[in-house]
Amino acid sequence: MGAAERIGEFHADRVAEVTDDEYVSVTQDTFVGMAIDAFRAFEPVSDETTVYYLYVVDNSDRLVGVMSLRELLNAPEDDVVEDHMVTDLVTIDADADPEYAADEMAEREFPALPVVEDGVLVGVLRTDDMLEVVEEEATEDILKSAGFSFTDVEQSRSSAILESSIPRILRLRLPWLIVALAGGLLAGGVIDYHEETLSGVVALAFFVPVIMDMGGNVGTQASTIFVRGLALGHIDDRNAAKYFAREGFIGLLIGLMIGAIGAGAAYVWQMNEPYATELAIVVFVGLVSVCVVASVVGYVIPWVMNKLGFDPAAASDPLITTVKDVTALLIYFGLAAVLLAELL
Amino acid sequence: MGAAERIGEFHADRVAEVTDDEYVSVTQDTFVGMAIDAFRAFEPVSDETTVYYLYVVDNSDRLVGVMSLRELLNAPEDDVVEDHMVTDLVTIDADADPEYAADEMAEREFPALPVVEDGVLVGVLRTDDMLEVVEEEATEDILKSAGFSFTDVEQSRSSAILESSIPRILRLRLPWLIVALAGGLLAGGVIDYHEETLSGVVALAFFVPVIMDMGGNVGTQASTIFVRGLALGHIDDRNAAKYFAREGFIGLLIGLMIGAIGAGAAYVWQMNEPYATELAIVVFVGLVSVCVVASVVGYVIPWVMNKLGFDPAAASDPLITTVKDVTALLIYFGLAAVLLAELL
Repeated sequence: MGAAERIGEFHADRVAEVTDDEYVSVTQDTFVGMAIDAFRAFEPVSDETTVYYLYVVDNSDRLVGVMSLRELLNAPEDDVVEDHMVTDLVTIDADADPEYAADEMAEREFPALPVVEDGVLVGVLRTDDMLEVVEEEATEDILKSAGFSFTDVEQSRSSAILESSIPRILRLRLPWLIVALAGGLLAGGVIDYHEETLSGVVALAFFVPVIMDMGGNVGTQASTIFVRGLALGHIDDRNAAKYFAREGFIGLLIGLMIGAIGAGAAYVWQMNEPYATELAIVVFVGLVSVCVVASVVGYVIPWVMNKLGFDPAAASDPLITTVKDVTALLIYFGLAAVLLAELL
Repeated sequence: MGAAERIGEFHADRVAEVTDDEYVSVTQDTFVGMAIDAFRAFEPVSDETTVYYLYVVDNSDRLVGVMSLRELLNAPEDDVVEDHMVTDLVTIDADADPEYAADEMAEREFPALPVVEDGVLVGVLRTDDMLEVVEEEATEDILKSAGFSFTDVEQSRSSAILESSIPRILRLRLPWLIVALAGGLLAGGVIDYHEETLSGVVALAFFVPVIMDMGGNVGTQASTIFVRGLALGHIDDRNAAKYFAREGFIGLLIGLMIGAIGAGAAYVWQMNEPYATELAIVVFVGLVSVCVVASVVGYVIPWVMNKLGFDPAAASDPLITTVKDVTALLIYFGLAAVLLAELL
């Protein structure tokens, strides 16, 4: 059974689950000629299995060296492998995250890495098997970011989602939608709280969609950058505060630009009304607030989720949406109540 | 220069850009012993370059066969390679999409594939170089789905986005946000058009957030499944209509469930008002409509974008948002104007 067949059915959390047990190993006192014979004698189960390296172990099966097949062919047949093997080993731990292993292999351009458990050689990790792991992890990340709640990990495959039974699809998609429904109703509650203000200036309702859309978009961008950076190891405990401050500042800049355009549009739209200037100010502050809040919570909520041990991609979005909607509408209608007080 | 170094700087659109030119080839009349000598003599530029196969070409450099190093070692030295080579070749075209090549390699578990141009061997594609391509493509897909507009393709790397200068980040993030701003204002225009209805029943505004949130979430789910299915080759011209009909049906089921919960909440919330029943009906129809419309446009807009030659991940979302917002608000307020007419 090839590793790729196995990972087609379940998701690999440990390198050990993708490890291939077809490899050639000899002890360090083996002659080069005998090692070549060991290669000749080796019959992989699958025709496609290609063996890249000779692994050299001591009497306790601890990995002590590696030789490529080319190095082996170039060495005198009467020497022992110990005289020619590379001892500066790059190994991967059986418990390591497959995504980390894939990064390591891509960066170093190794076609295979020996997998060890307490120094003992237990198998080989091959890049051709890792391709599927990387594709699968990426697909799962993408689908999770759209709010699919995976109870069964095999559901992460795009084909599985496309082919699943309708009850199963509903079970994957509905949980997040119901949380979002609750969040949307809560945001409506904020409008209800300011019903009097809204009754006085109904035009305030015209800008609720744009405030919600901008917050949603800015927040999605922030959380996408953050979750991806976390998954790829670019963001960690040491630099999280730096990126967090930076994202808040970017959110402010985006808010000032989007807010200026939005306020200009609001002023032109309502210029024949007595409250045109005040409304433009309220729209400006509302848009700036929602951009800053969405940027900040788009970073902070996935971070907290990650710290609490939840998957940041899956668990964050409904919370981000609710927090930025409620906060922005509170600020928008709160400021409107103050500035437009004389019209009420 | 390794392929991985090259693709760190730019994005590969053709297999040829990731192809390795270090390989061993011989003509078909070469003796096995001489082919082994050719392997011994081969000195790769990088120590990490591992050669997996012997490629056999005719006098015009056309690829006619392949032998693995193991097969070579097991063949009698005085035979010619033609007698032992595999002629049932799997090759990849130099113009092919690297993502397609990666899928092919992962599925067949080949560590390397010969790259041909008009049948002539031009290089070798190695899985260890492809790992980076797959990771990069996936990251770009994820970031595009969050509305980053990539003018410079190297910006797709998560680390590049995290480290970019602030003007550059704004240039990547703002274009989509400005389109979304226009869409949000257009949706506000629909509310303006129904200002009279809204003035009569201000409570209609309370459900604008939930209708927008549900449409956004359902549409994002639909377009994520669709764009991912398209990228991975699970959706094509032949089956697109089937998946489209299925997604519309799923949108209807989701809408009926979410609509029922939302309408129930609306009724309980406003039960002391004379228009509670009518409002609950309007909320139900609004939620069902937005779920169906969002599911359908979440599929159709990326499909049309793809047909027109645009990237479906990058170009679709602001359009999906605008279409579902405007349609749903037109239905919501239109029905409200009819059902709540006596209160106006």
